[in-house]
Amino acid sequence: MGSVAMDSDYGVPRELSTLQKARALYRPDLPPCLQGTTVRVEYGDAAIAADVAGAHVISHAFPHTYGQPLAHFLRKTTVAPDDTVITEHPVVRAGLVFSGRQSPGGHNVIWGLHDAIKAHNLNSKLIGGTDGLFAQKTLEITDEVLSSYKNQGGYDMLGRTRDQIRTTEQINAAMATCQALKLDALIIIGGVTSNTDAAQLADTFAESKCLTKVVGVPVTLNGDLKNQFVETTLGFDTICKVNSQLISNVCTDALSAEKYYYFVRLMGRKASHVALECALQSHPNMVILGEEVAASKLTIFDITKQICDAVQARAEKDKYHGVVLIPEGLVESIPELYALLQEIHGLHDKGVSVENISSHLSPWASALFDFLPPFIRKQIETEKLLAQLVEIEMNKRLKEGTYKGKKFNAICHFFGYQARGALPSKFDCDYAYVLGHVCYHILAAGLNGYMATVTNLKSPVNKWKCGAAPITSMMTVKRWSRGPAASQIGKPAVHMASVDLKGKPYELLRQNSSSFLMEDIYRNPGPLQFEGEGGETKPISLCVEDRDYMGRIKQLQEYLEKVKSMVKPGCSQDVLKAALSAMASVTEMLTIMSSPSFSGQATI
Amino acid sequence: MGSVAMDSDYGVPRELSTLQKARALYRPDLPPCLQGTTVRVEYGDAAIAADVAGAHVISHAFPHTYGQPLAHFLRKTTVAPDDTVITEHPVVRAGLVFSGRQSPGGHNVIWGLHDAIKAHNLNSKLIGGTDGLFAQKTLEITDEVLSSYKNQGGYDMLGRTRDQIRTTEQINAAMATCQALKLDALIIIGGVTSNTDAAQLADTFAESKCLTKVVGVPVTLNGDLKNQFVETTLGFDTICKVNSQLISNVCTDALSAEKYYYFVRLMGRKASHVALECALQSHPNMVILGEEVAASKLTIFDITKQICDAVQARAEKDKYHGVVLIPEGLVESIPELYALLQEIHGLHDKGVSVENISSHLSPWASALFDFLPPFIRKQIETEKLLAQLVEIEMNKRLKEGTYKGKKFNAICHFFGYQARGALPSKFDCDYAYVLGHVCYHILAAGLNGYMATVTNLKSPVNKWKCGAAPITSMMTVKRWSRGPAASQIGKPAVHMASVDLKGKPYELLRQNSSSFLMEDIYRNPGPLQFEGEGGETKPISLCVEDRDYMGRIKQLQEYLEKVKSMVKPGCSQDVLKAALSAMASVTEMLTIMSSPSFSGQATI
Repeated sequence: MGSVAMDSDYGVPRELSTLQKARALYRPDLPPCLQGTTVRVEYGDAAIAADVAGAHVISHAFPHTYGQPLAHFLRKTTVAPDDTVITEHPVVRAGLVFSGRQSPGGHNVIWGLHDAIKAHNLNSKLIGGTDGLFAQKTLEITDEVLSSYKNQGGYDMLGRTRDQIRTTEQINAAMATCQALKLDALIIIGGVTSNTDAAQLADTFAESKCLTKVVGVPVTLNGDLKNQFVETTLGFDTICKVNSQLISNVCTDALSAEKYYYFVRLMGRKASHVALECALQSHPNMVILGEEVAASKLTIFDITKQICDAVQARAEKDKYHGVVLIPEGLVESIPELYALLQEIHGLHDKGVSVENISSHLSPWASALFDFLPPFIRKQIETEKLLAQLVEIEMNKRLKEGTYKGKKFNAICHFFGYQARGALPSKFDCDYAYVLGHVCYHILAAGLNGYMATVTNLKSPVNKWKCGAAPITSMMTVKRWSRGPAASQIGKPAVHMASVDLKGKPYELLRQNSSSFLMEDIYRNPGPLQFEGEGGETKPISLCVEDRDYMGRIKQLQEYLEKVKSMVKPGCSQDVLKAALSAMASVTEMLTIMSSPSFSGQATI
Repeated sequence: MGSVAMDSDYGVPRELSTLQKARALYRPDLPPCLQGTTVRVEYGDAAIAADVAGAHVISHAFPHTYGQPLAHFLRKTTVAPDDTVITEHPVVRAGLVFSGRQSPGGHNVIWGLHDAIKAHNLNSKLIGGTDGLFAQKTLEITDEVLSSYKNQGGYDMLGRTRDQIRTTEQINAAMATCQALKLDALIIIGGVTSNTDAAQLADTFAESKCLTKVVGVPVTLNGDLKNQFVETTLGFDTICKVNSQLISNVCTDALSAEKYYYFVRLMGRKASHVALECALQSHPNMVILGEEVAASKLTIFDITKQICDAVQARAEKDKYHGVVLIPEGLVESIPELYALLQEIHGLHDKGVSVENISSHLSPWASALFDFLPPFIRKQIETEKLLAQLVEIEMNKRLKEGTYKGKKFNAICHFFGYQARGALPSKFDCDYAYVLGHVCYHILAAGLNGYMATVTNLKSPVNKWKCGAAPITSMMTVKRWSRGPAASQIGKPAVHMASVDLKGKPYELLRQNSSSFLMEDIYRNPGPLQFEGEGGETKPISLCVEDRDYMGRIKQLQEYLEKVKSMVKPGCSQDVLKAALSAMASVTEMLTIMSSPSFSGQATI
């Protein structure tokens, strides 16, 4: 129980390069609220689900953890005399797993949590799960184990778990592990799916009177775990920086060689956050966001035509090169391709082989399938499909005489795996380390089903605000179907945020899209720097967004306090009347705005 | 004549990122020999061709430039009184073109040359060719033009020329351009092909009494222009650093996910220098060098078996992940694939379409062609071919029960275009800037058919030695054939250096290959840094090589001088006899070693 396989590679010291060694010596700062050992927890109001319409489904699915209050961590600035004796914090045993796809910075969450735990009681223990939640294979995290993983990329200290927590058996297996290891808390590091699992575990543990509390940490390169409490996910900054560098290099290459169009597909699951951020950083000629395509209900042929028209417009300016970004999730945003994919997946699940798929498809899906170039049928690589369709169309236009330029040449790239294992940026190192500390304060406060949150991230670390939000408050009710015949099922899950087409990052892209398209104002953010110029940059989309939700909540509370202190027994009748009338209309307006029928958006 | 197209994008100011701006402000140092305005040229002996056996062919092909002496640039340390008046240097007009594929650092050659020219006479002019050698479209290089291209990647300031200089007409067109522009010198920036062209131009210009001198600069990312005068090519360092970072990220990813084998093909033409250097920097599990395969006469099936055996050995240690590097030129090193490719190219040149190729191939080539997976036939992507063959073989072993591990999964990558446009490393910025200065001193000395050289590169800049070597001295006689029936043609060209299987870099790889294979001692050199730790690193293969050929020549000359000064009229009979006897045997030994029959190697 809790034994380490002797032949395991986990946690072994790694050989580090000069730069890696220098990085291992870097120590992130903590925001003031987490400094010292007397952190105070302040609770806010109950955090209800942002998905107002789905609130009843969520509260029903998570009866034991729904509606918990928000928590903020504050430094105890006024140390009362009796506080001086509270030096001994209880011993804790915390477990931790990497869940799902690796994202840069994961190791620093462990480091931060370890440092916080040991700073409060040297007898406390942090235990990493090395083979998922069920196998009970563990590694005790020590200073020695950590030494060659600090500020390093990958998930190789523990490996990543592949376990999903869906069935009652899986939940019970996880609970058995937590109980066998006598864990006070289990920290789950991952994205929307892993945090949905964390919420599920938390609720079931609470119901079963299991003493282990479950804490989630928002870590995913996709950037799609984003809501009023989570400004960005850990790893997103690094991924966008590494990819933007490569995209920029390709742009420079295109401009130097002047004969190729590069079609670059970017990893990032369904939402197009990575593609948007990379476009803002490197200014390629085009980026096709899945959210735009879905909103405009574009077909694959519409997109092809758009690209062809762009190629033709550029050819008229004697430009025969360009760079087009394509998010991984684009394919799911094109209705007919998505439907075809759903049918193929359905047949695949039923064991139909690749060769026989065509004959099993519905007539319209079969027609589309047969139209696709043969190499595409085996595995749809969107960038190759688009490049090929554009080439076919440009050749057609050339033949018809509607296009008179040079032959269209495309080169395709997929940027994903080469960024995922990168050394984390300074921002991700800092964010991860602070998130690790926050996890400690969540478990020390005995909170269950919460996610660690750090806000005001666009400001320097000493302005960061730390807290915890119930995972249930980030949920929406997923309505998904598989195959045309399947019925709709409502299932609460942590909301996967798409690119907000009304948001500032997208607006910034739109404002510049025509100059990006025609003027080749390529920009190279350069390789990720750790020192000197460029070392302190953060995602553009994070910086232009007007976030700091928690800051504004705080500001509101200050207004309320001010009104309260101004309008109390002894104030004038006029002041009282004015305040009453004003507050009556404010509450009326807010009541209307808060009603389910008014709310059009799932998240703020 | 010499006009700039008004709609041209060349030399326009670029929008720079924060890091790019900081880079634009960086100013490389000059080695002491190039500081000040009183650089002295010292001539060595005539530099004969390293290819002793081909010397007569080379001397015949380049009668006007063959056998020119080596030149070294030295700072005039003792300034005689009359030197103080030599402040006015002649006005020069130099032209410059980027030739062939872009390589990081090219812009800094222009910058260095411009600075040197202007430092010697403000009325001198540097003119860049923006559309090849024949079009006479030019851009005058000024401080203003340079400002947003200093220390930046790509060739976009001028674009790259596609002109090849082969036929008499092409040579005459180039000569007409040089005469129309009244150029004192033409600087050609490129690799082996471009420098072969430069040598050809130089000889023809000399024959035709054209006043323009031709100078070559060794710039290619492939690192294959390497000989006793050229230690490394410009751009190689950056390319290897950018690629090594990505390979390392992929290694970390493999180790974190523990389920994929990554097959990574690296750009680098025929020789495997890039793959070797990247392997030394990032420690992947395997690297298959073209030179090894050619030396061992391995077939595609031998290589497949080697990889499969490695996969199997790793599976026995419960490892189901790995990274395999494959150089771009591997395919040319596999005899049967190379022969097939030659046949396909031959048929392609004759206009045979892809669909009909199989029926036109020789029987054995046709058999191999039909064996290849269909997607490969259209364009042979070595990494995909190998991954597929390994998968087929592993599945076969699994079925037969000789392999009992998990299913083999491969993901393929091609790293090339995403590195080629990168911001140049500090080393490449420095090397390029110094090469640019050296070009000035070559043209100021009126040398024709020379290449700019900087040696002792593994030492700091203040120890670098600058000189010029006749391009003809770097030539070998290429013996190439196309198709089995074609006869062998001897044609002198700048020697394309392969990886030396007896050299120290390869030895270093061999020493570590079994631990690389089995122990996953992946090493991440990290993203290219410009400041702080890692900013000063140089290619490992450059640093381990025992080069400094010119330094040793100098040392030898010092010995000879010493003997001369010790043995002169007045010395004892004994000393004279001993010296005579010793020198007789030294010259005898060297005569034997220098004879054509003794020389087994083309280059030292």
